Amino acid sequence: MKVAIMCSGGDSSGMNPAIKRFIEYSFELGFKPYLIYDGLEGMIDGNIKKADYSDAAGIIFRGGTIIGSSRSKRFYEYEYRKKAYENLKNKGIEALMVLGGNGSFKALDVFSKEFPVLYSGIPATIDNDIALNEYTLGTDTALNVIRHACDEIRDTSSSFRRGSIIETMGRECGYLALVSALSSGAEICLVPEIEFNLSSIKKRLIKEFKEGRRYLIAIVAEGVGITHYLKEWLEREIGIESRATVLGHVQRGGSPTVFDRLMAYEFVTIGLENLSKGISGVVVYNNGNFGLKDIDEINAAKYQIKPMLLKFGERLAN
Amino acid sequence: MKVAIMCSGGDSSGMNPAIKRFIEYSFELGFKPYLIYDGLEGMIDGNIKKADYSDAAGIIFRGGTIIGSSRSKRFYEYEYRKKAYENLKNKGIEALMVLGGNGSFKALDVFSKEFPVLYSGIPATIDNDIALNEYTLGTDTALNVIRHACDEIRDTSSSFRRGSIIETMGRECGYLALVSALSSGAEICLVPEIEFNLSSIKKRLIKEFKEGRRYLIAIVAEGVGITHYLKEWLEREIGIESRATVLGHVQRGGSPTVFDRLMAYEFVTIGLENLSKGISGVVVYNNGNFGLKDIDEINAAKYQIKPMLLKFGERLAN
Amino acid sequence: MKVAIMCSGGDSSGMNPAIKRFIEYSFELGFKPYLIYDGLEGMIDGNIKKADYSDAAGIIFRGGTIIGSSRSKRFYEYEYRKKAYENLKNKGIEALMVLGGNGSFKALDVFSKEFPVLYSGIPATIDNDIALNEYTLGTDTALNVIRHACDEIRDTSSSFRRGSIIETMGRECGYLALVSALSSGAEICLVPEIEFNLSSIKKRLIKEFKEGRRYLIAIVAEGVGITHYLKEWLEREIGIESRATVLGHVQRGGSPTVFDRLMAYEFVTIGLENLSKGISGVVVYNNGNFGLKDIDEINAAKYQIKPMLLKFGERLAN
Amino acid sequence: MKVAIMCSGGDSSGMNPAIKRFIEYSFELGFKPYLIYDGLEGMIDGNIKKADYSDAAGIIFRGGTIIGSSRSKRFYEYEYRKKAYENLKNKGIEALMVLGGNGSFKALDVFSKEFPVLYSGIPATIDNDIALNEYTLGTDTALNVIRHACDEIRDTSSSFRRGSIIETMGRECGYLALVSALSSGAEICLVPEIEFNLSSIKKRLIKEFKEGRRYLIAIVAEGVGITHYLKEWLEREIGIESRATVLGHVQRGGSPTVFDRLMAYEFVTIGLENLSKGISGVVVYNNGNFGLKDIDEINAAKYQIKPMLLKFGERLAN
Repeated sequence: MKVAIMCSGGDSSGMNPAIKRFIEYSFELGFKPYLIYDGLEGMIDGNIKKADYSDAAGIIFRGGTIIGSSRSKRFYEYEYRKKAYENLKNKGIEALMVLGGNGSFKALDVFSKEFPVLYSGIPATIDNDIALNEYTLGTDTALNVIRHACDEIRDTSSSFRRGSIIETMGRECGYLALVSALSSGAEICLVPEIEFNLSSIKKRLIKEFKEGRRYLIAIVAEGVGITHYLKEWLEREIGIESRATVLGHVQRGGSPTVFDRLMAYEFVTIGLENLSKGISGVVVYNNGNFGLKDIDEINAAKYQIKPMLLKFGERLAN
Repeated sequence: MKVAIMCSGGDSSGMNPAIKRFIEYSFELGFKPYLIYDGLEGMIDGNIKKADYSDAAGIIFRGGTIIGSSRSKRFYEYEYRKKAYENLKNKGIEALMVLGGNGSFKALDVFSKEFPVLYSGIPATIDNDIALNEYTLGTDTALNVIRHACDEIRDTSSSFRRGSIIETMGRECGYLALVSALSSGAEICLVPEIEFNLSSIKKRLIKEFKEGRRYLIAIVAEGVGITHYLKEWLEREIGIESRATVLGHVQRGGSPTVFDRLMAYEFVTIGLENLSKGISGVVVYNNGNFGLKDIDEINAAKYQIKPMLLKFGERLAN
Repeated sequence: MKVAIMCSGGDSSGMNPAIKRFIEYSFELGFKPYLIYDGLEGMIDGNIKKADYSDAAGIIFRGGTIIGSSRSKRFYEYEYRKKAYENLKNKGIEALMVLGGNGSFKALDVFSKEFPVLYSGIPATIDNDIALNEYTLGTDTALNVIRHACDEIRDTSSSFRRGSIIETMGRECGYLALVSALSSGAEICLVPEIEFNLSSIKKRLIKEFKEGRRYLIAIVAEGVGITHYLKEWLEREIGIESRATVLGHVQRGGSPTVFDRLMAYEFVTIGLENLSKGISGVVVYNNGNFGLKDIDEINAAKYQIKPMLLKFGERLAN
Repeated sequence: MKVAIMCSGGDSSGMNPAIKRFIEYSFELGFKPYLIYDGLEGMIDGNIKKADYSDAAGIIFRGGTIIGSSRSKRFYEYEYRKKAYENLKNKGIEALMVLGGNGSFKALDVFSKEFPVLYSGIPATIDNDIALNEYTLGTDTALNVIRHACDEIRDTSSSFRRGSIIETMGRECGYLALVSALSSGAEICLVPEIEFNLSSIKKRLIKEFKEGRRYLIAIVAEGVGITHYLKEWLEREIGIESRATVLGHVQRGGSPTVFDRLMAYEFVTIGLENLSKGISGVVVYNNGNFGLKDIDEINAAKYQIKPMLLKFGERLAN
């Protein structure tokens, strides 16, 4: 069987270890692996290459993805999907592995129902926002990149009486912000999933500053849209000079952590074994075990942060 | 209630975040937290201090443990355990949290049966070798320290035709070596849990070097005791100049990763809630959930690496 | 002799190793070392403490400054300077070492002419903008923090067709941006010291994208004030989707590099030896040697980036 | 003009940024750049390739050298040097840049006198042991790799009463060990250049442990050959449990620091400009300036660590 791998949507650290495992395990299973460059756009344009072992060399420690990624508007049109299918057919490719998020899986699902192509979706996005699935590749690396930034900002915050606000990525999902706050000892954490109360935060902080607190760190999910307001609020209401840092795209890079490399290894192994059995769907990870979900089932649900974490976060939002 | 925390046995990254959470959550629960310095030895010698918030400041990002640790022969004798108990009694301490491994938990279990003291054991050792429990604090940090070393050694190995053997810690447990090998793309991995076959490794390598391989990385658990032999074997049988690196104590240090900080947060939360309910025992983590085990149950069992990982490792041992 | 150390103005990595060396070398020279907390503000408020060896323990690897820093408006008024002097006099402190920049040195110079107090200025700011002096403590650490961010952003940029603009600190001085651009292989670098020409940049880039370039990195000094304009310009004129990242305060943190630790060691050694000989002034470093400058001489001059570096930068501004 | 670059002897971080600059600046000067793989061995075997821009992409942040290196016995024989020359002649290569150490420069010097080939030697070795020259590429990166290991070992040492001995590379040169000791706050440093006195060290340590010291770090150059003896000595004479770590080949890897990237940029620029003027010799760096030395002049001298550093080190050897 000929199988191809592609990345779709935002990139994340862990994609390269996944590509490496894809190439090597494909050979082990007797498949012929292919690389589709630049995501769905590349599939439409026939940007497809047979992989060999050398493609897997020296990539395991690299962030991002060596085969590129894209978002594609053209793929919404049947005409381009057909073109994509013909590119696969010409090469004899019967199965696809796609590293990406919800939207990409849905696109592949539609595609695999229109054309005789199996697909295996591997959750890979730093937002960790895929429902019915606890972990998406790249999240652990992103969290550790954020941790380094928080530790660095703490160094300088503690040298002054100063508030530091750090905005993390994650769109509608507060996972990155919440875990970062808990694991860096932040005093404030504002995420979409937790109702926050500025007046009780104010009361708490004023008490703590009276008792000797010198600085504070606030971590805010971009989805809350409050970063710059919070800076002014801290200066006005708490009376502490403050600085906001929007971490931005550094969060998407960084050498993959061990956890991301190992999860990539396992996710891809399961995904290829599904394809070898003729099974399409999204590989999910829950409570330490891998499973399979239909994309429609995933899209009908909503990603939920673990209740224990949400409970921990309440203290930082009040 | 007055509760005390101590570290016992080898230190690991993640102990400091655990101490921070212990102090802060104790206050939140209305407990009075104490710190026992230098482990069981310090408990015998009365090296015990009331904790306040300032003890929790600036420690979350530090490896090792700010309260020290020890191994204690004296604690095997009733006389010294009695002395330790009197030190606790004098301060009114009724419950202990201990960060350590099997041996330390067993010691505390005996102690809590002799004297009216609750204990909560929190798995913390880089060896990840506690039965009926999937994760011990410090493992993820150790793995990432090893990863950095492997990535650095790969840089220089690939500049030459060279074999590099890296020996990891872990005593009888090959977890660190196995996960490091999978996540750094090593060509050889030798651990106590997997039978290896040097002649099939030889056959495999000779083929690969013929096809263009320039260098190789072998990761070996210290418990196999083969590091220096393997160096000579590679030079003699494969004909490739080789170097062995024994990583040693660097593996115990390093700023705790996000995973270790978060696990410390959760482990300690559960442990303190157990103590608040009058429950002694070891907090364990399995399949994404926390539970409670009796130490005798743990000691009757044997730590098992996940079968999927062992299966992955076979390819590297043959 | 009693000598005190303080930090003034923006903090930088390297201040803690300097404080450590100050304490230890003071004892070696037979001096009594003191710590002034929170800079000039703390000197006014008498926030001064006798140092002992324990103050120097565990700080060498920490970014920021354990004794805090500040900017002080009060110090412009004679009344407060007198108050500061009396605080020193009460403790018998005859000499000050100040870690900071131009403004702080000028303040101390005025102070030491009004009152019988020696001062030694040690250049410490990440901006590397002190005239007649090649190196200020913290610059190397800041450069390496920026490097990590650039390497991480490159990971994700190269996964897409994308332009990434990175804004570095440095106020009027483009040193950080220029060295970062050269050492991270950026395609564009805009700094105040080099005239840039967007139309020649456009011509160059369009040619390179035609020849296969997929992404670009631009590094811009904050003093140029062009970051967000450049993002729009790249999208409009070059037709490449772009993202801007303002690195912000992460640049002030990070564990001091070896270079900063060693320079701190040497700067403080020279500074203390000056004080022991009754000499006031600013310690400077040029062409591998340490010297002494009067602050007025420094303020009359202007910091110049090495001509060779400026020449290298021209290619990136055209 | 056609110019080729090669690496020779031990690899070091900074070689890849040098190769990148070589390719790019060669094109800028109108030269045709070539890459010689695997050092002198590759030159003998004709392992030579024309470089293009793509060879310079994505290498600036990589440790080691993408073109490989070697030590060559064959090159001592005229016959093989002649073969090497013919390989160059066939391609029209008239000038060589070699990244390496003394031995490699001497070999090239002999070669360039026998055959009409210019050479430019660029000091590149982590040992920093080239006479009449203050800096060799890779030293700063190696120092920062050692720093990370020291900081990690300190974490765990401070958790126990423990001595940690760290052996650094550097052959006959103690530079790495001495600078590491000063910049990591070690208590003992033993290097070939400084006479040490164990009995005065013993006196000093016993006093400090009485006053409360809990742990100690000793950094030892491999050239002293005392690592394992020191471990036993500390246990026997000071009565402190101790561990030795031989850092080994991790020191040769690691992503090049900013300093190494910038020095690579400058060294190669000067070297290529020398070649463009028809000048052979070794590029050296002293007191902030680049110069040119004859290899015989270098070999007649001996590398000297800066006297100020040696003086600082005396305190740690007594």
